[in-house]
Amino acid sequence: MSIMGRQPIRWGIGIDVGGSSIKSGLVGEDGTVEAFAQHRLERVDEAGLLLNAISGEATRARQQAEALGFEVAGVGVCAPGSLETATGIIHKAPNLPGLDRLPLRDRLTEALAGPIHLANDVNAAALGESCFGAGQGHRHFAMVALGTGIGGGLILDGRLYTGAAGFAAEIGHIVVDPDGPACPCGNVGCLERYAGAAGIVETARRLLADGDIESPLAALPEDRLTPEHISEAAAAGDALSRQVLAETGRWLGIAFITLINLLDPECIVLGGGVAQAGAPLFDAIRSTLEGRTMSSTARSVPVVAARLGTQAGMVGAGALALWPERG
Amino acid sequence: MSIMGRQPIRWGIGIDVGGSSIKSGLVGEDGTVEAFAQHRLERVDEAGLLLNAISGEATRARQQAEALGFEVAGVGVCAPGSLETATGIIHKAPNLPGLDRLPLRDRLTEALAGPIHLANDVNAAALGESCFGAGQGHRHFAMVALGTGIGGGLILDGRLYTGAAGFAAEIGHIVVDPDGPACPCGNVGCLERYAGAAGIVETARRLLADGDIESPLAALPEDRLTPEHISEAAAAGDALSRQVLAETGRWLGIAFITLINLLDPECIVLGGGVAQAGAPLFDAIRSTLEGRTMSSTARSVPVVAARLGTQAGMVGAGALALWPERG
Repeated sequence: MSIMGRQPIRWGIGIDVGGSSIKSGLVGEDGTVEAFAQHRLERVDEAGLLLNAISGEATRARQQAEALGFEVAGVGVCAPGSLETATGIIHKAPNLPGLDRLPLRDRLTEALAGPIHLANDVNAAALGESCFGAGQGHRHFAMVALGTGIGGGLILDGRLYTGAAGFAAEIGHIVVDPDGPACPCGNVGCLERYAGAAGIVETARRLLADGDIESPLAALPEDRLTPEHISEAAAAGDALSRQVLAETGRWLGIAFITLINLLDPECIVLGGGVAQAGAPLFDAIRSTLEGRTMSSTARSVPVVAARLGTQAGMVGAGALALWPERG
Repeated sequence: MSIMGRQPIRWGIGIDVGGSSIKSGLVGEDGTVEAFAQHRLERVDEAGLLLNAISGEATRARQQAEALGFEVAGVGVCAPGSLETATGIIHKAPNLPGLDRLPLRDRLTEALAGPIHLANDVNAAALGESCFGAGQGHRHFAMVALGTGIGGGLILDGRLYTGAAGFAAEIGHIVVDPDGPACPCGNVGCLERYAGAAGIVETARRLLADGDIESPLAALPEDRLTPEHISEAAAAGDALSRQVLAETGRWLGIAFITLINLLDPECIVLGGGVAQAGAPLFDAIRSTLEGRTMSSTARSVPVVAARLGTQAGMVGAGALALWPERG
């Protein structure tokens, strides 16, 4: 028993390496976050600098845990890209070229003189939401992160499902149009081409060019348009922006029908910056699902907002350190 | 030790209830099948007759096991339709209306005075292939059965994955065309509409109507055309039939890309009558995959033929009785 009269809890060090910043903190078994820090990464193209930044954060967090008298269970690290389970190598991390094809797990294990737990960033976020967020109490759900790209994470049977090599849950690369535009991944018609940031902006440009609906977005220089502008304009009542989100939601809905028919999840958790668009986006997804979900099974799968926000990856990395068997 | 000098093995009673016949047998832990029987089902619309047929087969198999001195671990039953895990009820079994919405597990448990293990037919086939067929040695794979409809089964982490309610693995209802034709399931553009038996025949009719390619199929009355005719004509060199299989394979390939990007399986096992078309179909699937699989991960997922043929469901039901923890 601690001096507070409660059972002492264990803590995991969670580190989320992103394309522009690194977040770290201590994640308690009860979901509490302590000693959170976020630092800008000045350079993301050099392995040595990135490894130093990661091990620096791990050391800082460990020292803070010691000062607080916390028992640390381990270190979890997440980063974008396709993480190969067997080797601990991240393949194709366009926003973190310094990590691409680096034997990250081995190098960090060496640098930190102890085992670390690695995960893809959205996989970690899914685990975070599973332990402490919108996925709590669900054995099977999909996490979808809408940002520049579309990331995914699958919690199946209460555990992170990563597939044979570690490359599962590429929800952004569900085919939604068999003859759609080429995707940098090598496929065509991927969800990400329509509902990733660039795809959303493309839809807005098309509708602006059509000229059928007046919109304050027309006043913005075309190359400066972002999904955030569209969300804000939609929230302020702009019909064109709402149309953009309706089309985006339709594409997401079509992909989610496939996801539901394949995996029969209890819910779909939607996070990432673009999900901040809220109702206009969620409503379009839900009405697409209602119109198309398999009638035989008559189940409606809720699409709910993520709850851990921008800390989800870091929290999930900490959870992975606490409960490696769930990763 | 048995008199043969080997360790005695346990046996599961496997029963596969289909739209026109019931198959049953004793499935050994080593994959041996004994006392196999297949009977025509004269009526499939009456629950009582179907329940009698099933319990009759279970009793027959149990008696044969006794006569052979076999130790029986349990009874497994599979049937088409969406099996709800919690209730043991099959929803929407169009080919077995007598089972639709029947509390099948409870009624069979009562009739057989002991627990039975239930599974959807293609889920059972997936487990059969996992234990003794093309899925042996694979922790993660998808089974796809091409017939009148397109059924699916997922083996994830070495176990049958059935989802929250039991309705997972509806591979035939992966969306391959967002604006495709309506599917009886309530969705549009499902894989099954293109690569199920009716879809394949529709493709053949369209190509015949185009009149660009001469084909012996033109001599058949249009309403008698089946995928079997098309496979046979393709095997005999008919260019139109090969074109039909190429288009069918392309749709399957598109759906499989989604499956691969979501689940990262070790392989895809293709069974069912239509898969007998062989090379012209498999080649089209493979070339679609080669052209579109995510380049980042650079993995090619093999598409292989199922090995247990028409006994796969029965064998899988027996395996479920032997190893309920894998179901």
